[in-house]
Amino acid sequence: MIHAFSGGVGGAKLARGLADVVQPSHLTIVVNTGDDFDYLGLRIMPDFDSVAYALAGLNDTERGWGRADETWQCRDALAALGVDTWFSLGDRDLATHLLRISLLKGGATATDAAAEITRRMGIACRLVPMTDHPVNTMVVTESGELSFQEYFVRQRCEPAVAAFRFAGVNRATPSAAWFHTFKQGVSRGLILCPSNPFVSIDPILSLAGVRGLLRRRVLPVVAVSPLVGGTSIKGPLAKMLTELGQRCDVLAIADHYADFLDGMVIDNRDAEFEPELRRRGLHVAVCDTMMVGREVSRSLARVSLELLAHCGAKHAT
Amino acid sequence: MIHAFSGGVGGAKLARGLADVVQPSHLTIVVNTGDDFDYLGLRIMPDFDSVAYALAGLNDTERGWGRADETWQCRDALAALGVDTWFSLGDRDLATHLLRISLLKGGATATDAAAEITRRMGIACRLVPMTDHPVNTMVVTESGELSFQEYFVRQRCEPAVAAFRFAGVNRATPSAAWFHTFKQGVSRGLILCPSNPFVSIDPILSLAGVRGLLRRRVLPVVAVSPLVGGTSIKGPLAKMLTELGQRCDVLAIADHYADFLDGMVIDNRDAEFEPELRRRGLHVAVCDTMMVGREVSRSLARVSLELLAHCGAKHAT
Repeated sequence: MIHAFSGGVGGAKLARGLADVVQPSHLTIVVNTGDDFDYLGLRIMPDFDSVAYALAGLNDTERGWGRADETWQCRDALAALGVDTWFSLGDRDLATHLLRISLLKGGATATDAAAEITRRMGIACRLVPMTDHPVNTMVVTESGELSFQEYFVRQRCEPAVAAFRFAGVNRATPSAAWFHTFKQGVSRGLILCPSNPFVSIDPILSLAGVRGLLRRRVLPVVAVSPLVGGTSIKGPLAKMLTELGQRCDVLAIADHYADFLDGMVIDNRDAEFEPELRRRGLHVAVCDTMMVGREVSRSLARVSLELLAHCGAKHAT
Repeated sequence: MIHAFSGGVGGAKLARGLADVVQPSHLTIVVNTGDDFDYLGLRIMPDFDSVAYALAGLNDTERGWGRADETWQCRDALAALGVDTWFSLGDRDLATHLLRISLLKGGATATDAAAEITRRMGIACRLVPMTDHPVNTMVVTESGELSFQEYFVRQRCEPAVAAFRFAGVNRATPSAAWFHTFKQGVSRGLILCPSNPFVSIDPILSLAGVRGLLRRRVLPVVAVSPLVGGTSIKGPLAKMLTELGQRCDVLAIADHYADFLDGMVIDNRDAEFEPELRRRGLHVAVCDTMMVGREVSRSLARVSLELLAHCGAKHAT
């Protein structure tokens, strides 16, 4: 079994590549739920749905989020009713939310609902929300504490960030659907997808028992850098690093995961950092990490898996 | 104040006419909720929405139900996820359901939600669900008891009906939003829209205190016949009457409401029944009741109001 931790769009691209090259029954993708929120009576799980749509081939590759061939009739009708449509619900996307809320109302946990939705989408690997407990990523900014969606969608990441808080995480346990195999040593390793460390990966690491387990170095961990050439492809990571007073390059990512990281995949453009990463005891692979198409996702997945196997072999010795 | 009791499509057409000719603050339309049901986590109120869409000019006049310029992307995406889409949710229609469920989840009653939705739709008269309590119209058929939607949508009214039951009606009280003025004698009269007596009007009449009040003849009541030339324009009324062993003409409607009815508006095609209706003590108006357009709805509303005023004057003497 291979585990991967993922946020939304960037992580979804690597997840698709991993699903292409790993036998489905041997792949578990764990998705951040810190961004999830309630909207118009629905339970919106942005990261989960981004990865699910990517794995099912339903995602819009042009826009970069949501479903392909999407329409917006419902959103426009909501706006005509004077509803604040700060979050754009697509008509096709709504089908997923309606299926989910009816499963949840029927007593399903988030994990149960995820299993049912992925089954219906024909997704063969395991795609699991990190927890069934409510965890809300809060962004501490100069203008106060904001929920992640408030920060990300409404305020377009404009306020400078000072810190992050995962409300509810103290009472949250990892979903058994992934943590059982993870903690039993069944996993052959963990890949951290090129997602935002602060708001996509840290929520998963903050769940009871996860970071502690990784610090005991029971399994190899490889991170695929979400930074390329000192900037984030999409999303506010570079801006956040700057506002937090940290360096904005692959070393910052390595430092962030320093207490358990074994290897790192970095972009050709960041090859200059390879020696420094090695000096810090990391195994390194350098390749094209810009997943502009499915082929690049697949080859990046292969490179990540090879590095993970390499780290695993070193672990064993 | 004028009150009208209404079901869905047929009633909605007269409701629109009434709203055109009665000062908005003097018109209260009470809608059957016996057909309401839960679907995919939403609360669907078919009759309420039919009347609301008609009053707001949002209804599809060609199809006869739902919203104009409707699209079906979400329904098709649900079907692709293997969800049973026996009830067709339009993308624009979904906006109403999402607004309603978010209001209900926020603690609003059905009446509160109706007030908010009609306000946002720009509906000036009062449009109220008959009750805030759950009432479920059950159709007793040869093949067992069916919920109304099961009978109407899934089984296309095919099973022969034997009786009707309004589950929950014993614990249901009329919404104060209409019943307060109704029982205080503020109302200048009640119009029964051309809706199905068994499944659209009877649920309202069955609420605690309603039929008893009408039987005390405290206000004039006029029914607009839902039958024209011995058949129902749309819907299963004629079929139901036959299956119940009743006659299928305007006299059946008069008999159905015999214990409180003062007047009846019938179609030109049923003029032959006028003498018999008068012999039964009813005031009668004969006109074109086929509401093929807004002008006919308006003139039918005028005729109904005149007859109601006439009955009211007789009441007073």
